[in-house]
Amino acid sequence: ARIVLLPGDGIGPEIVAQAVRVLNAVADRFGHTFELTEQLIGGAAIDATGDPLPADSLAACKSADAILLGAVGGPKWDDPNASVRPEQGLLKIRKELGLFANLRPIKPLDALVDASPLKTHIVHGTDILFVRELTGGVYFGESGRRDGGKTAYQEMVYSEAEVERIVRLAAGLARGRDGRLTSVDKANVLEPSRLWRSVTSRVMKEEFPDVKLEHVLVDAMAMHLLVRPRDFDVVVTGNLFGDILTDEASMLPGSLGLLPSASLGVPRSEGGGPGLFEPIHGSAPDIAGTGKANPLATILCSAMLLRDGLGLPGEATAVERAVHDAVAAGVRTADIAAGGPSVTTVEATDAVL
Amino acid sequence: ARIVLLPGDGIGPEIVAQAVRVLNAVADRFGHTFELTEQLIGGAAIDATGDPLPADSLAACKSADAILLGAVGGPKWDDPNASVRPEQGLLKIRKELGLFANLRPIKPLDALVDASPLKTHIVHGTDILFVRELTGGVYFGESGRRDGGKTAYQEMVYSEAEVERIVRLAAGLARGRDGRLTSVDKANVLEPSRLWRSVTSRVMKEEFPDVKLEHVLVDAMAMHLLVRPRDFDVVVTGNLFGDILTDEASMLPGSLGLLPSASLGVPRSEGGGPGLFEPIHGSAPDIAGTGKANPLATILCSAMLLRDGLGLPGEATAVERAVHDAVAAGVRTADIAAGGPSVTTVEATDAVL
Ligand SMILES: CC(C)[C@H](C(=O)O)[C@@H](O)C(=O)O
Ligand SMILES: CC(C)[C@H](C(=O)O)[C@@H](O)C(=O)O
Repeated sequence: ARIVLLPGDGIGPEIVAQAVRVLNAVADRFGHTFELTEQLIGGAAIDATGDPLPADSLAACKSADAILLGAVGGPKWDDPNASVRPEQGLLKIRKELGLFANLRPIKPLDALVDASPLKTHIVHGTDILFVRELTGGVYFGESGRRDGGKTAYQEMVYSEAEVERIVRLAAGLARGRDGRLTSVDKANVLEPSRLWRSVTSRVMKEEFPDVKLEHVLVDAMAMHLLVRPRDFDVVVTGNLFGDILTDEASMLPGSLGLLPSASLGVPRSEGGGPGLFEPIHGSAPDIAGTGKANPLATILCSAMLLRDGLGLPGEATAVERAVHDAVAAGVRTADIAAGGPSVTTVEATDAVL
Repeated sequence: ARIVLLPGDGIGPEIVAQAVRVLNAVADRFGHTFELTEQLIGGAAIDATGDPLPADSLAACKSADAILLGAVGGPKWDDPNASVRPEQGLLKIRKELGLFANLRPIKPLDALVDASPLKTHIVHGTDILFVRELTGGVYFGESGRRDGGKTAYQEMVYSEAEVERIVRLAAGLARGRDGRLTSVDKANVLEPSRLWRSVTSRVMKEEFPDVKLEHVLVDAMAMHLLVRPRDFDVVVTGNLFGDILTDEASMLPGSLGLLPSASLGVPRSEGGGPGLFEPIHGSAPDIAGTGKANPLATILCSAMLLRDGLGLPGEATAVERAVHDAVAAGVRTADIAAGGPSVTTVEATDAVL
């Protein structure tokens, strides 16, 4: 299988290197051949080529079986008014590869539940899978200025087809879990949300009568996540609401350092392309190069890559188990050590291997 | 002073009645005359007239000095596809009265900090004033359908003038507090946010050099609120982000039952109109009529009404002190009793009086 690596900026290269060690170990152990090639994205790509997603990178990604991304961005490229910005690379790769679904599992580890900002009795047992629409909504709506530049606009827009495919994907995942789907919108105010809600209701009624559907307003959901996170199974929502809610929810486990994500499009087997796997945390430029970065989220991404990208569920589970065992055994990088003794990026990976 | 009461739906009438008792006591004690008149809004107005904000209500509000609102909405009027909906009344009154600024103080009471879903060491000492833009953004953008109804859109839009006035108001409030302003946007993706950010930077530099300004992305802010809420003083943001973030933040104190809000426009003294004061919580139809509703948020709204609506800061402080003393003395309606002994709506007000 061909895997493209997009290390990116800050700690990106360090943590991707560790995931590569794990992927190589899986190849050895299970008798696979992974062909790994590195490509540029983000600030590193801007510095080298002036383009946050150079044509070579995009072409390599398009012909890959799966993509592993580290992190993108940093203070050097931070000006939101700059005409070339690292996150344009991210938005472009999502759009070009048709990665319409962003999956973010939020399942706090028992061993780390004390690190949660929420009280233990609230967060314990939480197991949510967020499914965020990733190539539509206001992110990709027409935008510009009017009134001689004094008014700025960007259109929030959803089509029936966009809602149908993300809801089908989310409902299918709910079937394999606890059979419940929460759809989040702002249908009391926004026209695209009203379309979202009615399409969701129709698809679920016609195609997933066995999955329990609930509609929740985005403002209410921002509250529910803090007082009854255990009540949710799969949560599906649009691009902007998903951006905010998944980041809010990412605080529940008490560390970003263990949260993977997958961005999926139409699978290869159905005429589509590769999925992209990346940790939720950022490029952490403050600790880049210090050997302190936590590689576990990226290693968990490689597990998602094995399962959802290459169709190797046994291998994925082996990696996940190794990570959980290491954490349960007390292996802690500085970010999750709560001031106690900590290991380096490489040592954490050694423990997993 | 003329005060219009908009009791609305569910527990609305019950809690507004208690705030009226407090306002009458203030009038007595401080020698004021408050002329109180009741008007219809929301579901109650739909049932009576077919219109969630009848012309009579709007006219009365326009000529009032301040408006006190209970709550709007309920399962009876819940269908987001209905052509007439209670929240249209809310959106219309905001727009018609030019209530461009929604103020929501989030300051957990020490006596109730145990009720917070967050760990005490994180939430203790939090004192944030949210300033949400309330008459612009995607809420009031052009909306509709295309492609024979198969695509829905709504435009997110901000003008320089809209951003200037809300930032000035927020920065002025920061001056009277800890002198720090956090502006929240999504400038890495949205054009209206890029305008928001550059206008904010300019206004702050030119007019408020003494107030410390920080820009934060909305997804990052959703995280910060859960791990370092104490770090924020005044937070200013657009309509949609404000809707989500203020609701998230409203969980921090552990009960919605004590959170007031004020929606302000250009003040009367500068040619504008009245402010509108309403609790953050909803109409709680499940407990309407049981005598269990917590009136304290609405009573705290009457304090904001006295201060920000009628220019009576001494009277406002007296009411706030009475509420805090009652809570400190152990007065608890069911929602904040944590299963312990509780008082009724009327008894809670008696304690404040
Ligand atoms: C960097 C940014 C464009 C991006 C987004 O908003 O989608 C990020 O926040 C994310 O969630 O992956
Ligand atoms: C009811 C709804 C239209 C309203 C809003 O979204 O503004 C409410 O959530 C609020 O925050 O006052």
